Amino acid sequence: MEKKILAIVGLGHIGGSLAASLKAAKAPWHLRGADRRRRDVDYALRRGLIDEASSSPAEAAAGADLVLLATPVGAIRTLLDELSPRLAAGQVVTDVGSTKASIVAHAASVLSGGVAFVGGHPVAGTERAGVEAAVEGLFEGRRCVLTPTDSTPPRALELVAGLWGAVGAEVSFVSPESHDRLFARLSHLPNLAAYALVNAVAASVSPAELAFGGGALRDFTRVTQSPPALWRDVCLENRGEILEALAELGRELERVRESVAQGDGAALESFFQRAGEVRGTQWRR
Amino acid sequence: MEKKILAIVGLGHIGGSLAASLKAAKAPWHLRGADRRRRDVDYALRRGLIDEASSSPAEAAAGADLVLLATPVGAIRTLLDELSPRLAAGQVVTDVGSTKASIVAHAASVLSGGVAFVGGHPVAGTERAGVEAAVEGLFEGRRCVLTPTDSTPPRALELVAGLWGAVGAEVSFVSPESHDRLFARLSHLPNLAAYALVNAVAASVSPAELAFGGGALRDFTRVTQSPPALWRDVCLENRGEILEALAELGRELERVRESVAQGDGAALESFFQRAGEVRGTQWRR
Repeated sequence: MEKKILAIVGLGHIGGSLAASLKAAKAPWHLRGADRRRRDVDYALRRGLIDEASSSPAEAAAGADLVLLATPVGAIRTLLDELSPRLAAGQVVTDVGSTKASIVAHAASVLSGGVAFVGGHPVAGTERAGVEAAVEGLFEGRRCVLTPTDSTPPRALELVAGLWGAVGAEVSFVSPESHDRLFARLSHLPNLAAYALVNAVAASVSPAELAFGGGALRDFTRVTQSPPALWRDVCLENRGEILEALAELGRELERVRESVAQGDGAALESFFQRAGEVRGTQWRR
Repeated sequence: MEKKILAIVGLGHIGGSLAASLKAAKAPWHLRGADRRRRDVDYALRRGLIDEASSSPAEAAAGADLVLLATPVGAIRTLLDELSPRLAAGQVVTDVGSTKASIVAHAASVLSGGVAFVGGHPVAGTERAGVEAAVEGLFEGRRCVLTPTDSTPPRALELVAGLWGAVGAEVSFVSPESHDRLFARLSHLPNLAAYALVNAVAASVSPAELAFGGGALRDFTRVTQSPPALWRDVCLENRGEILEALAELGRELERVRESVAQGDGAALESFFQRAGEVRGTQWRR
């Protein structure tokens, strides 16, 4: 079987782990890698994660069947601008950004007709970063959301779905807008709340006193170890939905604040009960 | 060495785990247990967690050197009322409630002069409940906060500190008021925020869609599996500090909301950076 060419632009934790996982699965892809940091490309080549090192995104993309943009969210639109004049009809571009609507819309506006874009979001975030943290099997059993639109060619969607399927991901399809509405609530909001919580606590608790905290604060705030630029970019790209999600959280916090202020035990109990039931139906741990 | 008598009133997860841990450590205590649920007392006796079953708190407390109230927070004040006429000078009472100021003040007002009260809070909460979930070693290396006041006899404080030390807890001493200020931020606020978050998300995301959530929401909301009455009681007992903590969180959420609304990338990045640094200095995972 002839190998197709996959150009991975951005050899960080996600790009590197995808390469490692494709190699481990002996998937029929010839892997090219490019990254702003030359030493990460060299590392990936040396470790056998990629077959070929490219010196630029354009060089990696030239003639590739599939170009995967695995850079931080904030760099994807610029990369699309940069690559669009170099891509030829029949090539497919995809990404791994954790916001989708603005990226998909931008791709539609800058890529020429014959070049297909399929928005993608492998839900496998960890707080680790960098190609040296690349992990085989990172996507095994994890969800990968693809966000086709009415104009996405079925052939392009199949190609990208096949890539993620090859590394064991469970592929789902939703519209870019639904993706952003969902992930504003399921991911962006909890992360923002964790950052806000740490900042709120730090305002009145000294670092030494933090050591008194039990498991709740520690677990709750683990996510704050992500690179700050990541959440900055997500906030800027998914602004509307995040603002709505923050308003929804504000309403619930105001509700519990009122019940506390009034000493309304029954209202408090039903507030906690309701959340426990919703959460308990979804996850056992 | 003659054994002292410890009366454990409330054989739930904490009371049962303390009994199991004292037995495992061969600590020189004779253990009596009482619980509203007779079958939990029978279970504890059968499993060898306690040496003697009592049919009521008063029976357990009679002649005990130390009476440990390990019931839910909301029941402690009532128990103090009930036990106070039965206790004799020289006896010591302690508790495991996760709020302290109102309980310590109540104890001071209802116990007669010769009976000492030492507020206690073993920070070892899990989402599990019930004596059947009792775990040996639950307190090993975990913090136990004791909250003496100016009128706490040193002998009473030593007795209670020795109890927790015997099961491997790291014992700390702070005032009841400092305890409540700290735990409002380190424990009560994160828990309340988690409940509010689930309720906010549930308002606009269907149960089926919840499955799209990554690790953040799952980790963040694990704590919502605690009994609703537990957090109701904590809110009612630590009202003032929790209201302040909620206001502090509200201010930080408003700050990030404004930065998102204005698309202010620099402000967002520094907001995330600040939290990441505070959190990162305290915990590696």
